[in-house]
Amino acid sequence: MTGSLKIVGLGPGSADLLTPEVVAAVDNATDVLGYVPYVARVAPRPGLTLHPSDNRVELDRANHALQIAASGGHSVLVSSGDPGVFAMASAVFEALEHGPAEWLKLDVQVLPGITAMLAAAARLGAPLGHDFCAINLSDNLKPWELVERRVRLAAEADFAMAFYNPRSASRPHQFARILELLSECCEPERLISFARAVTTPEERLATVALADATPDMADMRTVVLVGNSATRRIGRWVYTPRSAL
Amino acid sequence: MTGSLKIVGLGPGSADLLTPEVVAAVDNATDVLGYVPYVARVAPRPGLTLHPSDNRVELDRANHALQIAASGGHSVLVSSGDPGVFAMASAVFEALEHGPAEWLKLDVQVLPGITAMLAAAARLGAPLGHDFCAINLSDNLKPWELVERRVRLAAEADFAMAFYNPRSASRPHQFARILELLSECCEPERLISFARAVTTPEERLATVALADATPDMADMRTVVLVGNSATRRIGRWVYTPRSAL
Repeated sequence: MTGSLKIVGLGPGSADLLTPEVVAAVDNATDVLGYVPYVARVAPRPGLTLHPSDNRVELDRANHALQIAASGGHSVLVSSGDPGVFAMASAVFEALEHGPAEWLKLDVQVLPGITAMLAAAARLGAPLGHDFCAINLSDNLKPWELVERRVRLAAEADFAMAFYNPRSASRPHQFARILELLSECCEPERLISFARAVTTPEERLATVALADATPDMADMRTVVLVGNSATRRIGRWVYTPRSAL
Repeated sequence: MTGSLKIVGLGPGSADLLTPEVVAAVDNATDVLGYVPYVARVAPRPGLTLHPSDNRVELDRANHALQIAASGGHSVLVSSGDPGVFAMASAVFEALEHGPAEWLKLDVQVLPGITAMLAAAARLGAPLGHDFCAINLSDNLKPWELVERRVRLAAEADFAMAFYNPRSASRPHQFARILELLSECCEPERLISFARAVTTPEERLATVALADATPDMADMRTVVLVGNSATRRIGRWVYTPRSAL
């Protein structure tokens, strides 16, 4: 029996954004693994074992999924959004790098999904319609100095920016520091959007001038989008023009 | 009769990556507009008018789609990938900004899709698994100096990078200049991946060290992914670790 591992993206929340290949992967799985709230999005059925696990145990979860595939199971590792954007795909390749050599022969596939920043951008208009960057503001896996340095260089490059994991209970001061840093690099009118739990019943969207942004506008379910210097409002929309000077 | 305009992303090519909301939008359209090869992906049916148009007429196409919605039609503007990433969404908001004020009351929605860089990343492994940026290398709508400046700052920030529209027949020297510039900023072993026509029958993937990259490895159907300084190979995969120093 030949097993497999598929690392799949469930999109931001709505089933309307699930790709057919991800639906098929989940339908054919023997085991689904992932962070508790993502596994909760998979319907139980006979023949399927659900393995919800805690946040911050990504490598253990990746190893477990690879072990299941190595024993002939069809394991599916679920991420929200896209598995390649601040999610489980990198953790699996880290586990592969440090695991037994025979794991490299396993049937492993990454199936993309709609990532939070693009779902948020679509709801807001087109704030990422020109060159942009995506930065994970968590310093769990990198020094905080590097986060600040990247935000500063992104502002200097006049990229629109998407911030993932902007704020958690354990580090509330850091997002305040990012807003301060942006104020040093950008004009006070710069548009900043807070998109929370996009496409779910808890969705909340807000766009303000940077000068009016406060740290409590973001939490860990929020993706923050910062416009470039040309980003503007038109009616209820926020968009970044395709051209730049 | 109240019209509508939906600006939708068809994904990179495979129908397996089309979201249900995009399929429903196309099924309910009276008019589908877009660049010739994207409209060709929509099946003709009675009651649906297809409006294929040439490249570089984005604003005319956006105005046409808005006019159809204003006259009560259900127009769908198709982009490949995601409409908010170097595609039609920004063009529509530009048209809205310069159009009649009553257009602002129209029912306009942007429906996201799987963008080329994330489909390519999934096929390759997880090259965008840490902070990254997306840059359109075309200088149709911005000065070439700005392209160079952004690539240089992105390398300084140690972002992984995705390049859209890397090369066209009319400007073959520019991508050669980008490779030269990267060689000045990055080590020769830096991994660079060329992902052409991902998820279509013409898909072609290649990853080489920067020192071995040549301009002819890219064309306009290619998205180019440049790793950050930690991006590595493991087996047949390319991935960027979640952590950074």
